Amino acid sequence: MDLLNKTLKKIAPTNDKYAHTAQRRLDNLTKPIGSLGRLEEFARRLVAITETDSPSLNKKVIFTFAGDHGITAEGISAYPKEVTPQMVFNFLRGGAGINVLARHAGAEVVVVDIGVDYDFNKTDGLIDMKVMRGTRNFVNGAAMTRDDAIRCIEAGISLANDYALKGYSIFGTGEMGIGNTTPSSAIASVLTGRAVADVTGKGTGITDESLVNKIRVIEEGIRVNKPDANDPLDVLAKVGGTEIGGIAGIILGAAASRIPVVIDGFISTAGALIAYCLEPKTADYMFAAHNSVEIGHKAMLGKMGLKPILDLDLRLGEGTGAALALLLIEAGLKIYKEMATFGEAGVSSEIIN
Amino acid sequence: MDLLNKTLKKIAPTNDKYAHTAQRRLDNLTKPIGSLGRLEEFARRLVAITETDSPSLNKKVIFTFAGDHGITAEGISAYPKEVTPQMVFNFLRGGAGINVLARHAGAEVVVVDIGVDYDFNKTDGLIDMKVMRGTRNFVNGAAMTRDDAIRCIEAGISLANDYALKGYSIFGTGEMGIGNTTPSSAIASVLTGRAVADVTGKGTGITDESLVNKIRVIEEGIRVNKPDANDPLDVLAKVGGTEIGGIAGIILGAAASRIPVVIDGFISTAGALIAYCLEPKTADYMFAAHNSVEIGHKAMLGKMGLKPILDLDLRLGEGTGAALALLLIEAGLKIYKEMATFGEAGVSSEIIN
Repeated sequence: MDLLNKTLKKIAPTNDKYAHTAQRRLDNLTKPIGSLGRLEEFARRLVAITETDSPSLNKKVIFTFAGDHGITAEGISAYPKEVTPQMVFNFLRGGAGINVLARHAGAEVVVVDIGVDYDFNKTDGLIDMKVMRGTRNFVNGAAMTRDDAIRCIEAGISLANDYALKGYSIFGTGEMGIGNTTPSSAIASVLTGRAVADVTGKGTGITDESLVNKIRVIEEGIRVNKPDANDPLDVLAKVGGTEIGGIAGIILGAAASRIPVVIDGFISTAGALIAYCLEPKTADYMFAAHNSVEIGHKAMLGKMGLKPILDLDLRLGEGTGAALALLLIEAGLKIYKEMATFGEAGVSSEIIN
Repeated sequence: MDLLNKTLKKIAPTNDKYAHTAQRRLDNLTKPIGSLGRLEEFARRLVAITETDSPSLNKKVIFTFAGDHGITAEGISAYPKEVTPQMVFNFLRGGAGINVLARHAGAEVVVVDIGVDYDFNKTDGLIDMKVMRGTRNFVNGAAMTRDDAIRCIEAGISLANDYALKGYSIFGTGEMGIGNTTPSSAIASVLTGRAVADVTGKGTGITDESLVNKIRVIEEGIRVNKPDANDPLDVLAKVGGTEIGGIAGIILGAAASRIPVVIDGFISTAGALIAYCLEPKTADYMFAAHNSVEIGHKAMLGKMGLKPILDLDLRLGEGTGAALALLLIEAGLKIYKEMATFGEAGVSSEIIN
């Protein structure tokens, strides 16, 4: 709890002064004012977050947290929970979607076991931050204790601090956990105040019948646990998941170290919303990678005032959307750093109307 | 006209058989079926276009056509026409937005003078395909002759054929031409049947008053010239532009050689619409890079059945949106080629509901 509290105290809002300075440079580049739209926004925000007039994105890392969910006993997922550790091995061998897209974006992938129901022993390349072997089934009571929820968040903060010290300049979030759209929808419902049915989708691809069951299970879990919407740690503990806590920690750690963090899709956004409700200033440091197919995503992004960068009908998770968004955020930075000004290029900046 | 006719005859539709084969492989990769959304679509389409089960995007090129417009005499642009050659020099020195973003995407930029009102002599790095020194002011009669319109298109086809022979595997389109949203809106209005006011925006950033004038000028140009909506060459000649014709040619040449082509924004899409109206099968080879801020863009994309990849409030042109979209199209191809299958990864593909 000390690390969490210390981190929360360090988080300051970004200063508009830096964004204005960046926009002045952008307005002097050889293009009509504002004509590169959101690429300019990305550059402005990177300057404001890092408080330097020449940010670098040389070292990029995506944290992919893996965890299991007791709630899978209720038949809420299309896949058996054995797929979680199988996919962890796939990540470590470089064969998963996140590996391909992170390579494409020039980012490393850090795979973290924060709560998988499998004994990896000391598997090479896997970061062991296991808080528990899967959460408990939250229709019968809390998914984890409040202390465990804090341990998950602090695991994320520690990782963020490590990678900040190592000189990484931007983080992406990702996850793997069979069943994890279910706790994410529960968090979305409690923290946005929407009905469960309005924020619950088909995850990896369940049937219409299974969706009805999934909604009923989440409603029951909320009824049984009564998570307190004003206490994000209570929500995370009662109806959340370990990987969601880890992601919340990465975001808190990023904000405390003035490092931009790219939020992947639906589950990552549930983690982001936990971080945001603990400290709303974290939103200044977040980039929303994409608009997920999951129907609850928009409500969570809206609550944090974030506008997704991409809309490509993705629903894989792992950090895949974050990897793609990194390419566009970096494009904005390159525009800011590499384009010629009107003066340098001998181009007339005169406007004739 | 021979080259144009020969090219039109060579254009065949893509064959769904290849797309189905590609989707079978995509469905066997370690992810829920369809969960990578449009990335899967990009891979499927690349396979269908190239008719190979292992397409390559190693050599990428963006063609940026520059041309001037007599219509600028009517005060329809925020910038003086001298900016067109100034920006051409900026492209050649590598300082413009397209240079930065093409480098980011690993693409070359080929700068083509197809109709600039400036004598470049033999400027290093610039491809000289000048058809005329700027079009004529189309409120007083045709912007160019039908023969000149054909020469513009055939210049684009020749370039496409050259770069196909050199082994380039994907093309992007781009342009520079002060005033060129005006002929693009005229083309959009004639070929989609929408009112001029519904497809005319503020280009590089004119005032509300200038927008009223711009709409009036386009309406007058259409009234004076009576372009035949069933004859795309007539439309290009009477109310179009040289760079728009060049872009149409690149697209026709790409389709004839089974090369995918990424259409940039509003002006490039006007060129694409000319190509499409000459031969609708060209749409099978096109990727729409992004949704431009220009209001007429959606109507043209809709007519061709194209869905834009990005929506980043861009309105610069040059090929900048195409460069960004290339990164995402290539991401789709890498997913297809590099991800592990369920069998390779030892991941259960069993679905439990």
